[in-house]
Parts: sequence; structure tokens; C-alpha cells
Amino acid sequence: MLFLRAKLLDIDLGDNGVVINEKEIVGTEYYPQDRVLVECAKGSFIGVLYTTKKMVKEGELGISRGVIEGIEEGEEVRLRHAPRPKSLKYIKKKMDGGVLKPHEIHTIVDEIVQGKLSNIELTGFVVSTYIHGMEIGEIVEMTKRMGETGERLHWDKHPVVDVHSIGGVPGNKYALITVPIVAAAGMIIPKTSSRAITSAAGTADVMEVLTRVDLDAQEMKRVVEATNGCLVWGGSVNLAPADDIIINVERPLSIDPQPQLLASVMAKKIAAGINYTVIDIPVGPGAKIKNEREGYALARKFIELGDRVGIDVECAITYGGQPIGRAVGPALEAREALMALEDPKSAPKSLIEKSLSLAGILLEFGGVAQHGSGTKVAKDILYSGKALEKFKEIVLEQGGGEGITKSEDVELGRYFEDVPSSKDGYVISLSNRGITEIAKEAGAPRDKMAGVLLYVKRGCKVNRGDILYRIYSSSEERLKSALKLARRIHPVRVEGMVIRRISKF
Amino acid sequence: MLFLRAKLLDIDLGDNGVVINEKEIVGTEYYPQDRVLVECAKGSFIGVLYTTKKMVKEGELGISRGVIEGIEEGEEVRLRHAPRPKSLKYIKKKMDGGVLKPHEIHTIVDEIVQGKLSNIELTGFVVSTYIHGMEIGEIVEMTKRMGETGERLHWDKHPVVDVHSIGGVPGNKYALITVPIVAAAGMIIPKTSSRAITSAAGTADVMEVLTRVDLDAQEMKRVVEATNGCLVWGGSVNLAPADDIIINVERPLSIDPQPQLLASVMAKKIAAGINYTVIDIPVGPGAKIKNEREGYALARKFIELGDRVGIDVECAITYGGQPIGRAVGPALEAREALMALEDPKSAPKSLIEKSLSLAGILLEFGGVAQHGSGTKVAKDILYSGKALEKFKEIVLEQGGGEGITKSEDVELGRYFEDVPSSKDGYVISLSNRGITEIAKEAGAPRDKMAGVLLYVKRGCKVNRGDILYRIYSSSEERLKSALKLARRIHPVRVEGMVIRRISKF
Repeated sequence: MLFLRAKLLDIDLGDNGVVINEKEIVGTEYYPQDRVLVECAKGSFIGVLYTTKKMVKEGELGISRGVIEGIEEGEEVRLRHAPRPKSLKYIKKKMDGGVLKPHEIHTIVDEIVQGKLSNIELTGFVVSTYIHGMEIGEIVEMTKRMGETGERLHWDKHPVVDVHSIGGVPGNKYALITVPIVAAAGMIIPKTSSRAITSAAGTADVMEVLTRVDLDAQEMKRVVEATNGCLVWGGSVNLAPADDIIINVERPLSIDPQPQLLASVMAKKIAAGINYTVIDIPVGPGAKIKNEREGYALARKFIELGDRVGIDVECAITYGGQPIGRAVGPALEAREALMALEDPKSAPKSLIEKSLSLAGILLEFGGVAQHGSGTKVAKDILYSGKALEKFKEIVLEQGGGEGITKSEDVELGRYFEDVPSSKDGYVISLSNRGITEIAKEAGAPRDKMAGVLLYVKRGCKVNRGDILYRIYSSSEERLKSALKLARRIHPVRVEGMVIRRISKF
Repeated sequence: MLFLRAKLLDIDLGDNGVVINEKEIVGTEYYPQDRVLVECAKGSFIGVLYTTKKMVKEGELGISRGVIEGIEEGEEVRLRHAPRPKSLKYIKKKMDGGVLKPHEIHTIVDEIVQGKLSNIELTGFVVSTYIHGMEIGEIVEMTKRMGETGERLHWDKHPVVDVHSIGGVPGNKYALITVPIVAAAGMIIPKTSSRAITSAAGTADVMEVLTRVDLDAQEMKRVVEATNGCLVWGGSVNLAPADDIIINVERPLSIDPQPQLLASVMAKKIAAGINYTVIDIPVGPGAKIKNEREGYALARKFIELGDRVGIDVECAITYGGQPIGRAVGPALEAREALMALEDPKSAPKSLIEKSLSLAGILLEFGGVAQHGSGTKVAKDILYSGKALEKFKEIVLEQGGGEGITKSEDVELGRYFEDVPSSKDGYVISLSNRGITEIAKEAGAPRDKMAGVLLYVKRGCKVNRGDILYRIYSSSEERLKSALKLARRIHPVRVEGMVIRRISKF
């Protein structure tokens, strides 16, 4: 235990950070980033220890004003290690390859949500589950508990359906078309989406070009009751928040252990009160899932997990080897989705086909379409203009009466430049990752008007000088930077029919 | 990339921390604790991102004054993610159970030392090696590379010997006796030690009661050239610093993966220019290694690793089931060691026997004693008073002419209290962990005068009211707190010969 004098600071560091002179802890058992218990006359709190060379002197402890009511400058405070989280021994059990009991998993999930686990402890858990995996029984418990923490939605009408993509393919804006089709058919579809994590645009980023997406649970409910559907950002609804914390250690390691993937998707469905969901599993080079065999294995797990937590699940293995449609980046994608709703005939076939197929599966489940005719019914709704009308309703309802409902009103980056083909031939590949990186370098997703518009897709014949794609940005400097990257990584490969010529000499 | 205005702050957060308003990064791909590259007109630096509610406004980036020369308040700065460390893909390879190539291990070690790995990445590596283990070839490469980073010592005389305990048993102050015996015999023994990590006193903490221990490599060399030996803190010599970083993620998880244990010990020997070392492996309940079989397995690995990196290794499996000697805590241990040097006859047998055995092995290796007579030669040196003389030389040389060289001059905590036995019987167990916790609660290792002095050891016969141990502290309040803990955890168990009576009714 250290005895120190309080020094009140006009800063806040999150996590109730307290600041100590680095000399104070040399040779002690205290280290930067330790979770510590600070006790003073007026009470106590748990915080994170930061060190400084000069911000506070030896013998002082810097405490943010407001962390604890009534604390006075210079009063004695005691600092000791915060009790270790209870989860630690269960995390070690998983590290040692053990199978966790329900109450052990519950403790881990609860302490994650309560912010009691440090990044080191959380990484220990995530990496252990990545290496050892989890049994389906463990995943079921994790999913249920994650679904119980945070906000929960309840609905009067049934069935409540949902469509969810596990992600990994750029330009995947199908939900802006699928959701209004399903809602127009009279089914309840309260869709929450994520913002971009590593992509150039999440569905929430795309939708935000047209209307508000940061609705809380109350507001979201109101929109769905008025329109049957919504397209909001999951982050502000606070469904199954454990996932939002776990992802902070998965991202830096570029891992997404399957137990967590399964649990995080299905826990949000539990919390959102969903009865039935279609899971879109894009498969292909450059997607999260590399081949159909892996896709089927994952699909079977989703279906079994759904079964065990009381949600009907169907999976659609979809083609994810190149971007969906032609647009990548928030504004470009929003415009493309609106154009597809306005005039489906002129829209990219990959986008229309995917949107209708997923809508069709949902319509068949809801009994609105007979088995086998879902896609046809979805197509009728889209071509009749009813999906566009429904989408406009949703946009206006989410925006409190305001929003963009015409594709021609969507503004794109004022700076753009075309990238032409340097030779005659065929497009033999189109890199998901390359296109994403260029759109991000141009400023997406933060610069909503930045992105990439493709003029070709795989298999297209091109002549030298034909435009392959156009890069948009709101910043001249970033456009240049994106162009530089494009020249270096060449995301669209054009080759003649003879790809390599091997001569005798 | 974010474009922000610099706001200069009079704080430093370590790691070149920069501070951003939390609203600024909502919905972006930036997260607290991200490693970011900050570019401004005058240059760039890599830092860690912290968030705040009010310390800086939206659009601003808080930068510590002094992080970058010449930066001006309000000037435009660009913030983007720092390039990912190269190690990341090798860490993932280990996570996936792969065997790392030499250059892959070198990259990991180099980036650890350069501070390029975040806690999350480092934890990913450590947990993976904990689960998958490492092949001896990988450990050899890790050891060699760790030994090459940081300071390196070179010696003119040979052989250069060392003795090292893997730790885990309290009161283990043998080095204060073994080192002067070996040095008095004319051999070079540049001993570095650690401070307490989870114990009540590391050898460096004990030695610091008597003299300076924070010598740099230059000063340490001078002491050894003058006296043949030294007893300094490894931390200030900066040998194989990767270990000091790795330990920061091992501690919170309470893991010490064997590959890291082996590499960290032997890397420091390489860096210190050691030719021959004895590794002390304490075995017993409450020690790091639970039984002899485990001890032998670890010993064989140490010997093989030594062989592959060019250091002769012998291991001594020692009894670690209760504290060594009677004293636990920096000043108490320093006094006990001095008393043992002054009057070996009256010293605790466990301490004398261990110190002489380890010295004997070293003397035999150095050719100072014939095989089988090392302990005898060590005993002669100790009883002749030459070890005491040598120890005084070392103390004074390390302290620049100053230091405590008489046991009666060692000051103990002014507050103390005795804990008596509540019944007649025999001491059937003495908990390493319990004694350590009480000494720590009393203030050790930071309060050097705090600790526990045992009046009994295992097997002793005691009567009701006999003193079991005395607790010392510099603070009355802490003494009370330690006594309270002592009453709760009962580290010394006394039972009659009949331990449990089972009656018919």
C-alpha cells in the first residue's frame, strides 16, 4: 500500500486514471497500467495507474477532479492493488485447455461488461479461445449471457426477422434494399448494423449519409412501430455490449476467434428480440471465409447455436470474391442503393441479385411468399416502387422528418480522378482488400464522400485507356495519396487471354 | 487520417501519449490505446492515443510539451495509425501453433526491446508460447537475441561464474554469503539480482539496506575489478532488457511460460559475460516448482540451453518448502546474512548449508577445490572470516566508500509485535506464501525495515504461548494491518502428534 497526498487535476483519462510520479513506484510492486484501489476520507474508487515524470511530484497522486465527490487537495489517500478480477482463474483454466462451466463463463462475460478486465487479461481470454476453441455448450452459455447484458428489445408483433452479414466484402450495401422490401411486405425487421471496423464503410456509415443512425433503443422502437423496419447503428442501441469490448483486443491482433464471432452475432439477436435471422456468409478469395467448405461448417454452427438459444437461423453462402455492386465508400454506396431502389433495371446485377435473394428467404420464412417463390415476390415489391416508398419512410422517420431520399441529392467528393487500364485484355481479378485500402486512403469512412466507383468487374473486357475505376475524396491531398497507393498496389488486374508467354530463350 | 490542431499540454503520459476528445473518434477506426503516427511541420513521432471528455476539445490533439521540438500551439497535425509491427505475423504464426524461424524470433525480440509491441500484441505472444510451448531451437534463438540487446559485459579474467535462483522461496539471501566466499577464493563473480516482483524482498532489495545497488555497467565493472565480485540490481545494468518488458504482461496473468523463464535467465548470463553458472531450483509446496520430477525436467532444459549458447550450467535442486533461514524482509535478511558471515556457528543451518553447497559447486568448477571437497573449502573460507572481509570490501566499493558492514548497525522497524502459539504441539507447516503476504502487508519491500522474523521452523516443538514469529514495521498502522492478516491466514500451523481425532459419536 502507498500513502500519498491527493493532487486534483483538470484532466480526465477515462477508466478513472490516476497519475503517479514514475520515481514513486521504482522497486515497488506497482506498475503503469495496474488497476488500483484508491481510498480517501470520502470513499474509494478503482482506477488505472499512469506514470509521469513531472506532472505530479513524488508523494502525490494525481486524481481527476470529479472522480470522487468532496475529495480535497492535499488530503491523504491510500493506493493499493485493486482486487484481481474473479475471471482470472477461469481465463487461466481456458488457457490450460479446460472446458468452462456455465457460471465461469457468466463471470467472465459480466466482468468484461463491467470493465473489470484489463486488456492483458482480456487478450489472455481471447487468444486462449482462439487456440483451444470452445465447445458448443460453452458458446451457448457465452451467447446467452452476452445477450442478457445491456439493452433488450421486446416486440408486440411477430415474427421479428433480421438479416446479418458476417462481413469481409466491400460494397455490401444490400441491407438498404433488402430491409425495405421485407418491411413493405408487412414483416418486422429492426435492423442494427455496425460502422466500419476495418472496411471503408459499414452499413451504418452508409445509412448515415441519408439520415440519423445513432438512435437509442427507445427511438429505434418508435421507428420500427411506425414503418416495420429500421437501419440504425448498433453501437448506440447498446445491445450485448461485451462484444464491443472484446473487439478492441481482436482488432490489433487481426483475429476473430470463431466462438466469439458466433456468440457476438447471436447475442445481439437475442438482445434485439429477433425470432428468425438469415446469416449472409460471403465466401471467396479476399473474404473472411476462403472456401465453401469453411462456409458450410460455419453455417452449421450458426444453425445449431440458434437452435440452442431459441432463434431460427438460415445461412446463405454468397459470392464474396469481389465488391458487391460498383460503389465502395459511404456516399457512393448510399447513392447506389437509392438508384437501385429507384430504377432496379439499371442497377448492378450482383447487388440486385443478392438483395432479392436474401429478402426472398425472409419472405418465405414469414409466410408472405411460398417456398421457392420468395425472390420473385421480393422482385415484384422492388419493381413496384413499394420498397423505395418504404425506404423513404424509414429515412424520414429515423431523421425526425429529415433525410435524403433521392439518389441525385447525394453529394460525392468534389475531387476525383480516373484510373485507366494500361493495356488491352480482361479483368482477371479485383482485390477486395486493395479497393478497400484505396477508399480508406481517400478518407473513407470518416470522409463520407470519399470512395471508389468501379467501372469494371471481373471478366470485363477492357481496352487500353478505358477507365477501371474512379477515386473520390473531399480532400485534394488525400486524393493524391490514394492515387499513389492505387499505382503501387494495382487492385484491378488486366491480362490478355495469354497470361504468360514462356519462350525457348 | 485525422487532421487536428496541436494543443500543447504540460503533462507526460509515457509512450508519447497524445490526447484526443472522445467524440472525435466515435465511428472512426481509431480507438483508445491505438499506436498512432503523429506528423507535423517539424517532424513526426509514434505515440499512444488517449481519450478525454474535456481535456482537449474536438478538433484538437493534446501533445506533451517536449515530445517534438519546435511544434507550435494550434498548428495542423495529422494523425494516422502507426505501421503495424512486423512481429505481428510471427506472433500469429505462433498463435496458430507454428515453429518460428530464427529471423522471426529475432524480429519479435527486437520489436519488444524497441517498445513497438502493445500490451495486447505482447500478451498474444506470451499466451501463445504458454499454450503451444517452444522447441529448444526456438528458445536458443530467443535467448541469444535477448542476450545481444541491451548492455554487454566483457571480462579480462576467466572463468566468470554466477549463481542464480529461479526464486519462489522467501528469505533466500544465500547470495550475500555465497558470492563473497567465491570472490575471496579469487574467482570472478559479477552477480546481478532482481528486486522483489511478488516476494517481500529480492536480493537487490536486501543488499540495498547495506549499500548502493543501482550501479550502471561501468560502475559494476569497476567494483568487480577491485573485489572479484559484486551484488547489484540487474535493472540498472540494463542486461537483456526484453525480459523486463515481457514480465509486465506475465505478472497480471500469473503465468511464467517455461520458454520465457529459460530464455530470460540465460540471456542475462550471456549479456553479463558469464562462462559458468549454477542454477538454484527450489522445490516444494509453495515454491515455483512443486516436485523433484518437475525440478529435474527444468534442470535438463537449463543444461541443454546452456550448452547451445556456450555457457556451462549446473543445477541444484534445493529444498524450498519453507523460508530459508529465519528472516524475511530487506533489513531482517541483510542483518541475518551479516550475522552469518560474522558468526556462522550461530546462524540458521538451512541458510549456511545452502550458501556453502552452492559456493562449493562454484569452487569445484573453478578448480579452487577438488571434486567433492567444494563445500569443505567454502566452509573454511567462511569460518576463517575471509568471506566477511570480502563482503565488507564489496559493500564499501559499491557504496563509494560508504555502507553498513556490521550486523548490529542494521536498523529494524521500530514497531513490532510477537505472534504466540495458541497451543502445545509441533510446527507441521510454515506457508511460504503466508509469511510473504504478512511481510508485504507490514510494508516490505518498500519499507525496508518491515518483515517477519521466524522463531520456529518446521518440526519444532512449541508450547502454548511460545513466540512463533515477530512482525516488524516502520508504521504502527501497517503493523496492525499485518497482524490482522496474520490472525486470518495462520501461516504457521501447530498440531499435536494426533492431528485429528475421530470419535465414534
